[in-house]
Amino acid sequence: MPFRKIINDPVYGFITIDEPLIFNILSHPYFQRLRRIKQMALAHLVYPGAVHTRLHHALGAYHLMGLALSELQNKGADITPEEATAAKIAILLHDIGHGPFSHALEHVLIEDLHHEDISLMLMKKLDQQFNGQLKLAIEIFTGQHPKKFLHQLISGQLDVDRMDYLTRDSFFTGVSEGVIGYDRILKMLTVHQGELVVEEKGIYSIEKFLVARRLMYWQAYLHKTVLAAEMMLVKILERAKRLLQQGDVDVRTDGPLTRFLAGEFSGAMDENLDLFTSLDDADVIVAMKKWCHHPDKVLSFLCRSVMNRELLKVQLQATPIDPGLLTEKHRETVRITGFTPEEAGFVCFTGESVNRLYDPHVEHIRILYKDGRLRDISQVDNALIHENLSAPVKKFYLCYVG
Amino acid sequence: MPFRKIINDPVYGFITIDEPLIFNILSHPYFQRLRRIKQMALAHLVYPGAVHTRLHHALGAYHLMGLALSELQNKGADITPEEATAAKIAILLHDIGHGPFSHALEHVLIEDLHHEDISLMLMKKLDQQFNGQLKLAIEIFTGQHPKKFLHQLISGQLDVDRMDYLTRDSFFTGVSEGVIGYDRILKMLTVHQGELVVEEKGIYSIEKFLVARRLMYWQAYLHKTVLAAEMMLVKILERAKRLLQQGDVDVRTDGPLTRFLAGEFSGAMDENLDLFTSLDDADVIVAMKKWCHHPDKVLSFLCRSVMNRELLKVQLQATPIDPGLLTEKHRETVRITGFTPEEAGFVCFTGESVNRLYDPHVEHIRILYKDGRLRDISQVDNALIHENLSAPVKKFYLCYVG
Amino acid sequence: MPFRKIINDPVYGFITIDEPLIFNILSHPYFQRLRRIKQMALAHLVYPGAVHTRLHHALGAYHLMGLALSELQNKGADITPEEATAAKIAILLHDIGHGPFSHALEHVLIEDLHHEDISLMLMKKLDQQFNGQLKLAIEIFTGQHPKKFLHQLISGQLDVDRMDYLTRDSFFTGVSEGVIGYDRILKMLTVHQGELVVEEKGIYSIEKFLVARRLMYWQAYLHKTVLAAEMMLVKILERAKRLLQQGDVDVRTDGPLTRFLAGEFSGAMDENLDLFTSLDDADVIVAMKKWCHHPDKVLSFLCRSVMNRELLKVQLQATPIDPGLLTEKHRETVRITGFTPEEAGFVCFTGESVNRLYDPHVEHIRILYKDGRLRDISQVDNALIHENLSAPVKKFYLCYVG
Amino acid sequence: MPFRKIINDPVYGFITIDEPLIFNILSHPYFQRLRRIKQMALAHLVYPGAVHTRLHHALGAYHLMGLALSELQNKGADITPEEATAAKIAILLHDIGHGPFSHALEHVLIEDLHHEDISLMLMKKLDQQFNGQLKLAIEIFTGQHPKKFLHQLISGQLDVDRMDYLTRDSFFTGVSEGVIGYDRILKMLTVHQGELVVEEKGIYSIEKFLVARRLMYWQAYLHKTVLAAEMMLVKILERAKRLLQQGDVDVRTDGPLTRFLAGEFSGAMDENLDLFTSLDDADVIVAMKKWCHHPDKVLSFLCRSVMNRELLKVQLQATPIDPGLLTEKHRETVRITGFTPEEAGFVCFTGESVNRLYDPHVEHIRILYKDGRLRDISQVDNALIHENLSAPVKKFYLCYVG
Repeated sequence: MPFRKIINDPVYGFITIDEPLIFNILSHPYFQRLRRIKQMALAHLVYPGAVHTRLHHALGAYHLMGLALSELQNKGADITPEEATAAKIAILLHDIGHGPFSHALEHVLIEDLHHEDISLMLMKKLDQQFNGQLKLAIEIFTGQHPKKFLHQLISGQLDVDRMDYLTRDSFFTGVSEGVIGYDRILKMLTVHQGELVVEEKGIYSIEKFLVARRLMYWQAYLHKTVLAAEMMLVKILERAKRLLQQGDVDVRTDGPLTRFLAGEFSGAMDENLDLFTSLDDADVIVAMKKWCHHPDKVLSFLCRSVMNRELLKVQLQATPIDPGLLTEKHRETVRITGFTPEEAGFVCFTGESVNRLYDPHVEHIRILYKDGRLRDISQVDNALIHENLSAPVKKFYLCYVG
Repeated sequence: MPFRKIINDPVYGFITIDEPLIFNILSHPYFQRLRRIKQMALAHLVYPGAVHTRLHHALGAYHLMGLALSELQNKGADITPEEATAAKIAILLHDIGHGPFSHALEHVLIEDLHHEDISLMLMKKLDQQFNGQLKLAIEIFTGQHPKKFLHQLISGQLDVDRMDYLTRDSFFTGVSEGVIGYDRILKMLTVHQGELVVEEKGIYSIEKFLVARRLMYWQAYLHKTVLAAEMMLVKILERAKRLLQQGDVDVRTDGPLTRFLAGEFSGAMDENLDLFTSLDDADVIVAMKKWCHHPDKVLSFLCRSVMNRELLKVQLQATPIDPGLLTEKHRETVRITGFTPEEAGFVCFTGESVNRLYDPHVEHIRILYKDGRLRDISQVDNALIHENLSAPVKKFYLCYVG
Repeated sequence: MPFRKIINDPVYGFITIDEPLIFNILSHPYFQRLRRIKQMALAHLVYPGAVHTRLHHALGAYHLMGLALSELQNKGADITPEEATAAKIAILLHDIGHGPFSHALEHVLIEDLHHEDISLMLMKKLDQQFNGQLKLAIEIFTGQHPKKFLHQLISGQLDVDRMDYLTRDSFFTGVSEGVIGYDRILKMLTVHQGELVVEEKGIYSIEKFLVARRLMYWQAYLHKTVLAAEMMLVKILERAKRLLQQGDVDVRTDGPLTRFLAGEFSGAMDENLDLFTSLDDADVIVAMKKWCHHPDKVLSFLCRSVMNRELLKVQLQATPIDPGLLTEKHRETVRITGFTPEEAGFVCFTGESVNRLYDPHVEHIRILYKDGRLRDISQVDNALIHENLSAPVKKFYLCYVG
Repeated sequence: MPFRKIINDPVYGFITIDEPLIFNILSHPYFQRLRRIKQMALAHLVYPGAVHTRLHHALGAYHLMGLALSELQNKGADITPEEATAAKIAILLHDIGHGPFSHALEHVLIEDLHHEDISLMLMKKLDQQFNGQLKLAIEIFTGQHPKKFLHQLISGQLDVDRMDYLTRDSFFTGVSEGVIGYDRILKMLTVHQGELVVEEKGIYSIEKFLVARRLMYWQAYLHKTVLAAEMMLVKILERAKRLLQQGDVDVRTDGPLTRFLAGEFSGAMDENLDLFTSLDDADVIVAMKKWCHHPDKVLSFLCRSVMNRELLKVQLQATPIDPGLLTEKHRETVRITGFTPEEAGFVCFTGESVNRLYDPHVEHIRILYKDGRLRDISQVDNALIHENLSAPVKKFYLCYVG
């Protein structure tokens, strides 16, 4: 009887693993670690269901990759069994370099590296352990494989990563409006001159997909309460870092977290991958719980706030925060908290968040017409996705104690 | 124990009827007739699940009206119990004037009247039978009631009619992309200066709603196969009318259908309401089945085509059909079918379908900001719904035998 | 590019047709007719969403057959491509012999034949038209094919027919409790000694399936209001038959319905298949609408009752109806309606409905343990499905005017 | 405008909080802590979606309580606004005494107390902080309130706790067969002589509910892999306890976990509630990660196994494990691991799990017939739930290194 494992997924029903190599990668501690990293960081403070994990997302994206590949094969695309397996492995591992709280803490723990860089390091390490069986997956992941569409399925405007996270995040948050027709979009994909394009009759599904993404950005990923909570998390780690640098030993915790905060690993990541993969959300939570009682007033204030969900006030707007307003709120924060002006900077601050609906100059979603013409999705008749929307949308926020 | 009936609805779970008057209206033959009229006419030829009825839609819209009213009441809107009941009755009956195959045959059976006109006639007749208990409902339906927002809930950009039909039609077709966040939109509605407006944080849901509507238009309501089938239905009745006028008796059927085709009632509808309400989809189906064997070649050809789903070819495009192309297809049709040129006009023809995403000059969706400002949905920051989209979108089609 | 048609199904997402032969069978007027026959007859009088058609069910069962076959193939079952196609065709056509209102009118229009008999006649006729390409499908359908499990997938305790109708009927009625884990059950099926069996870990899913079926019987199929409505339909046709026999010409309608009521075809069905396939729900509806005005008081009373959903009262109980009670209700009915005692028998009558949860003596669901043992589902440890439940459950009803 | 907060829930859509007192309880750190305790402990090792939290379950049960109360009020049950609020608070807090990994670690960290005892202690403490506003809630929770049905809604055969956890757990695991018709069951509840009973027409829904519970027990809660993982977790803490008792300091961790393992609090829980509420899943995870490197071979072996999901083998059966088999597996485990026989006892052990479908002698689900009779669900006609099923079902397991 052939090898087969079945995993229940509330989103897609069942996910099938039918290759031992893929099952072995799934079983590796690097991958199992993703069970302990929430996909949406602190979004669960607003959407209590959003506690799903990076592991679950990776499995989901793997499932969609399987559907996409057999769809394209049905339409005559040339994909060898080895390439199919490699593309599945690449998507399974595309986010393996994420650290605790995913994007929220990127660049705080490891300053100089993107999570994609760490993903690649981990893939190379796994390749060694699996005797070179991940070579092709790495080529596809890094865009060096000649069949460009395979890379586009992993990282591109219409990759299965986005399709899964939009579908999954809207499922677990309960924001039903974020639902996309992933199954229909997959059926509309085809390969044209080596690149991934969309059949003409998929135009409306694609527009809908972009609009759903826009909605999820403002309603979930950049929801002002989520934003505030995640910025507070950043401030907590920055404060802890500073205290460490000042020689504060109380800030140290069991486990590797403080070593990262102390910056011991910047630049030498490659040798410390096992240490990195021992980190997960739980380390940060336990540290915050400890720091709730730390003598530094700022650190303990922020930690109690996040743990008990007593978050900073937030103002979110389309125009930059008026410096006068910041000054005023800062002064008020000092008065209320009794912090020094420098300390108050950790609980009263501004920032900006950016989202771009679609940029036809950088990325492309191309529609293949029945008569063979190709057009960008922003150039079709009566396009919903227009020039104006391609400009990045910035929103500016002010957090403060009020 | 208070009066209460519960109806299972796969879309909303349970629909509750808790007023005897409303139950009695539901039980009236005028309303029960809606069981026999499909909401989406011939869309089931493409989407086999889309066989839900006008009765089901009316119940759904009634359910949403109940939710909307209690939402607004929670927010302090002044709505008396009598007004609430009246608004529910008005939405329950808003489509009661639809004839067989809903929109598809509007103006074919009854030339001079919109279905809304007939709805009003039927509401007045019911008002008599229910001893004037529908007075307030009629006022709201016709927009004469001073609380304008009640009428807007029945007929306006954000009425519960649209919310139900988009939700229901996407449910039964299986076009999951048409799903709107009706529950969230309802929670975002509020009354401002007597009119229905949307709270600021509902902007993205509204944009999503408009995009879902656009998608459903092109993917379902104006799907080219559906369009062809429904135009063929129109041609069938036009052909039958002409034959009747020419004195053909074979075209007559049991029941009232041929009386309508013979135009006996135009202008005197009011007195023939009971006859009108005896018509439903089944009459047209039985007539078509009979006409499959009618000696008129055109009539029998069209009837067999629709009954057996052997539809005309369709070309759908953004620009008007080139007259040369029509001439060519017409000639070909004559050749293939052996019809005379005049006859061929019934199976080779052009037409246009129009959809407008949102017209800020005519209708309004107004956003109420926290600071009290009002802005049109097309004027908010980074609006998705822009000027260009407000122009009506026309598509042009050519049907032919190919 | 290979042949492929995709059909949206709200229940399963997408149904794929990838063989021209199957598409051609789907396109045949015999099959298209199933669009006009409701799967659940008059159940929509209680569950307004239950207007889905026999065509939709046939497509759904076809889809599940595809899943079941590839599941079994994955587990090593020997199924040739020809057998797979044949099994799909057989399930697609298994109900093609249903007449108007499905089971509700079986044996009323055609007295001596089961719908399965007519299905077989139609399959043979199609086999002729398709040049013998349905031979294997017919062998499987009739149980003559040596691979018994293929027939069991079409007609047996765990056939895909039941799996689809339970799933589909619970979807469209909104009775969420009828939901079965069809995807899990399919994954638990395997072939053992040529027969369909269930893997050990599927025990609870199977128990759940049987309980869901029990629930759907009492809550939907044999719901007392549905029962009453469908019995009234039977009485209408019986009354019309009698009037026809008495020479009443007013009872005649356009179309073939009255020819069936006149019994012209009994015993000669085979030659009249085309006439049979011209019948559908619409004929019965139009006839009932006509008969609402028929001079026979009984016929018009019953027709108005069904059309306007003013149904008879029903008493449903576990013990036979007391003859004294029937006499009393009959007398009362005579008094209220003014009918003669003979006439009153059409609106005051008793009957019984039977459902059997599971009969281990007749049919079998066998569980295959890991150690190779086989046990009946009623014999597993702590079986939910026990001896007592295998006895047929009768319920007795009394309909009357009250 | 009245107070109102809305929370998105993927299971029920929206959950509304419309009383400031309830919102304040939700916002209390005791309640917020439940965000960090998974509802299903280690079930996510089998069902990756099952990472939902105790907080989410408490909110869901609160939502169902609201529906149940207004349902009963509609049917005329006498429930004052104060009682309604109190019942909602009681259900919100019913599980607040759960520690890390919910049931899996109950009695390991705190030996002498049930989680319900701790819930009560925490409710009393909150009552002090909220100036006695929880008095009535505590009375209902402890069953001292005269309206017995209110307590039955919190703790009884048909309480909203079970309804939510079955619904929620089946949603997040994706075990669609565990779905119950909670909305229908709620509509069938009524109060009779002060107790909660079910209307006659709810019989099949209740049977279905009990069967769904049975299925969820065997398929999820007591799934053999979940069982193994959770028993390993217990063994880890038992091993750590023993090492602590032996004076091993390496086993100590940051935070309060080791103080509980050292047994410092048994018997004095009441005074240490704040310490207890500082514990959550993260403490156990961080401890396990640390212990992966602990010199004790048994502790590190078990921790690595759980963290990397390399679980013990499990045999699950209906009869007690044969002592000879245990001896054999123990010997093999010693051989494979190199552990001493005593050490091997931590990775090779037996145990039993018990589930009872329904015990009519202890708890009751009573059906109220239209004629006023009351019958136990196991005594209705053709009962599915029979005597045999009321006996507790034991399953016996053997875990070992294989």
